Amino acid sequence: MTIDTTRIQQLFSQPLKVANLGLDLFADALDAEGVEAARVEWRPPLIELEPEAAALFNDPRIEAANQEAVGQMMAAQPMLVDVRPAREVLPDMTERTFFHAGPPLDWASASGPMRGALIGAMLYEGLAQSAEQAESLAERGEIELSPCHHHEAVGPMAGVISPSMPVMVVENAAGENRAHCTLNEGLGKVLRYGANGPEVIERLRWFEHVFGPLVGAALRAIGGVDLRVMTAQAIQMGDECHNRNKAGTNLFTREIAPALVECGAPTADIAAVLRFLQGNDFFYLNLAMAMGKAAADAAHDVAGSTMVSTMARNGTEFGIRVSGLGDRWFTAPSEPVRGLYFPGYGPADANPDIGDSAITETVGIGGFALAGAPAIVQFIGGTPADALRYTLDMYDITVAEHDDFRIPALDFRGTPVGIDVRKVIRTGVRPVIDTGIAHREPGIGQVGAGIVHPPLACFIEAMRAIEMGWAVDSG
Amino acid sequence: MTIDTTRIQQLFSQPLKVANLGLDLFADALDAEGVEAARVEWRPPLIELEPEAAALFNDPRIEAANQEAVGQMMAAQPMLVDVRPAREVLPDMTERTFFHAGPPLDWASASGPMRGALIGAMLYEGLAQSAEQAESLAERGEIELSPCHHHEAVGPMAGVISPSMPVMVVENAAGENRAHCTLNEGLGKVLRYGANGPEVIERLRWFEHVFGPLVGAALRAIGGVDLRVMTAQAIQMGDECHNRNKAGTNLFTREIAPALVECGAPTADIAAVLRFLQGNDFFYLNLAMAMGKAAADAAHDVAGSTMVSTMARNGTEFGIRVSGLGDRWFTAPSEPVRGLYFPGYGPADANPDIGDSAITETVGIGGFALAGAPAIVQFIGGTPADALRYTLDMYDITVAEHDDFRIPALDFRGTPVGIDVRKVIRTGVRPVIDTGIAHREPGIGQVGAGIVHPPLACFIEAMRAIEMGWAVDSG
Repeated sequence: MTIDTTRIQQLFSQPLKVANLGLDLFADALDAEGVEAARVEWRPPLIELEPEAAALFNDPRIEAANQEAVGQMMAAQPMLVDVRPAREVLPDMTERTFFHAGPPLDWASASGPMRGALIGAMLYEGLAQSAEQAESLAERGEIELSPCHHHEAVGPMAGVISPSMPVMVVENAAGENRAHCTLNEGLGKVLRYGANGPEVIERLRWFEHVFGPLVGAALRAIGGVDLRVMTAQAIQMGDECHNRNKAGTNLFTREIAPALVECGAPTADIAAVLRFLQGNDFFYLNLAMAMGKAAADAAHDVAGSTMVSTMARNGTEFGIRVSGLGDRWFTAPSEPVRGLYFPGYGPADANPDIGDSAITETVGIGGFALAGAPAIVQFIGGTPADALRYTLDMYDITVAEHDDFRIPALDFRGTPVGIDVRKVIRTGVRPVIDTGIAHREPGIGQVGAGIVHPPLACFIEAMRAIEMGWAVDSG
Repeated sequence: MTIDTTRIQQLFSQPLKVANLGLDLFADALDAEGVEAARVEWRPPLIELEPEAAALFNDPRIEAANQEAVGQMMAAQPMLVDVRPAREVLPDMTERTFFHAGPPLDWASASGPMRGALIGAMLYEGLAQSAEQAESLAERGEIELSPCHHHEAVGPMAGVISPSMPVMVVENAAGENRAHCTLNEGLGKVLRYGANGPEVIERLRWFEHVFGPLVGAALRAIGGVDLRVMTAQAIQMGDECHNRNKAGTNLFTREIAPALVECGAPTADIAAVLRFLQGNDFFYLNLAMAMGKAAADAAHDVAGSTMVSTMARNGTEFGIRVSGLGDRWFTAPSEPVRGLYFPGYGPADANPDIGDSAITETVGIGGFALAGAPAIVQFIGGTPADALRYTLDMYDITVAEHDDFRIPALDFRGTPVGIDVRKVIRTGVRPVIDTGIAHREPGIGQVGAGIVHPPLACFIEAMRAIEMGWAVDSG
């Protein structure tokens, strides 16, 4: 091998000049070595704003509003204090009202699992004696549909809440707001995935007559459970509180078990409640969701904030709401979930993304905390390295790092929290959501779990609204 | 700046020749780049063996024996099946027998916390009415001391087991052996740390009359708990099952709660048992220890094996036993623990390393699983990076990676398991143990927690015995 020493000499005789285009990784590494690098900021723009609106990306008033919003979100102290029938605690619920997940929806556009769950709820409430009767009622417009999110509530998957269902009552001890969520039914054939057979209805009745009253009594006896503290602990134990909820369920069970024993109910009922908790590793999901709703609502309606305060899917559309943009939903068709399927099922069976459970990602857990929950990849696919990367990516589109939800594997760094619509637009990075997959037909149930993102269109529409609001403001 | 191009030319005109001395990291990196490197194995030898014994380090018969031993250790299926009074289940226990942690010990050489615990046990058994009476009994030799490890048992810290104490009964479903351990009392003023005040004795009596019988009944009702499976889950939830036991305690509580409710005891007692479990994040430690003892005993007495089957400390001496070297203890003075102290205490208050709890490290958990339990550094000191490093170091001195105890943060790699005396001698790397710190005076209790290592002298003595055994064998 021969070497052209002239070229080598030239190379070694000149000082190095480095230009870094786009991502800063290379320039950062050179910085650390004491080598100067010119940084050229460059990304392909997701949308083009009007020239006078470009300043939105660096507006100090928006920064301040977002800090206030995320501060409210993290300061919330969601206390789980009771379990009560929905009709007693949810605003504007009548005997023919059915709340559902996601943005507003009518029967005609409802997906299979949403229809399945609504049919099940009508059977459960005794409004219909058969699925056909129930469908006919719904088609005639004899039931009223409304998003859970409009009534201080959230529900996983179809998220259907009917008047007799017991819901968990969460009070924000640091504010005035309340949040509610149904009780988690477990995996497989359950109402929230669109199943509505006899065992589904029977479980709902047992919730109403046994589980709800007993757990409510235990919660009242112990003065409630601090869900922020419990969720922080669960996250340190490998849950991300969306698709892995084992640690949270364990913590909750151990916390209420003594008071449950003392609630005065028959021994067989107490044992049955504890056995249900023992058999349902997902029970904590609904607690995390109610906590998330209480925190997200506390962060809503901060003037000037571009922070997302709701992400929810009704099985047909994905919708977001933004703290500074009032109650308007920005919607687009739900996307398919990439993930692992239960034996016998595949992507062709899957309904598009559905459920209010993305409230967990909205408040900095779920997909945003995957780095702390590597064991979850056995359920949703991918590797522990993917789980780490998902969380790291979210720091690029969020407003803060969570004060309480900290990930040991990241040296106790707080989870990324508070999605900034502007940052999603600027980077093209979408929030990551890890979620369950429902069968697309009514009456079947869960068929898998995986990863999904909100449609970019939701953020683009929201950015346009921010742009218009800004134009009005400065005009 | 001028460059001597002649030297550069020489450098670039010759093929590279690389010699790697000692640790293989550099040669490994070159391998990955396709560059040849001569590897020169070199470490400062810890002791010099007779020339004819040097082959011990690569003897295929020893390798095979160690694989057999670690295979037995991992194949053990420790089932927690009951809680019974010690006198009913521990071999060779009389009404004046007191078992203790670590290698054999007499009263004269017993440390403060060991004396404190023995005094407490004598008061509890009604053999003495005061600490002075108890001391006098012990000085006159009227009680018999014997290591737990000689009687199918282990005990944390002082590890004292007296005849009336309830012990957990663990059966190895994959073998013939049984293991036992006391019930964990919680932190602070507890017998195992040498405290012996009225509240300590009262708790022991409640264990005997309420907690033990109720939990025993629940275990019998559910047919036992598979401790290998439960420990594997706890490790995936951030426990290392020595100084962090919260996930394990949660799992155990959730598992037995339904049967506990149905055991027929008064409601107040059932609630008290659940409340005790709720308040004691260390309860699972003693389950992990009984599991460890069952697995370690299954791996003992494999002819030719240089694998450690016991590590235990009596508060004065550290002792190890080796699978292929029978029941002989190799002992040396216990070392101080480096760690964090509770407010008001410091290193001057600390007793040297004490307890049978190093059985956890012996079977590949505890300090060996720290990489999966980064949250523990808040309790024992250091950083999550330290926790990771401790585990990685242990792969250098162990025989295998555990089939069931897997660490998500290491991409589900099995924990390092089965300490090879030869590898400790060859590398100078000592096992890492994370442990509690007892006050050096009797009657006080725990003052902190931290990291400690066995004295090298134990391994040097064991290596000499291996050398002699081998010489006899080949002579």
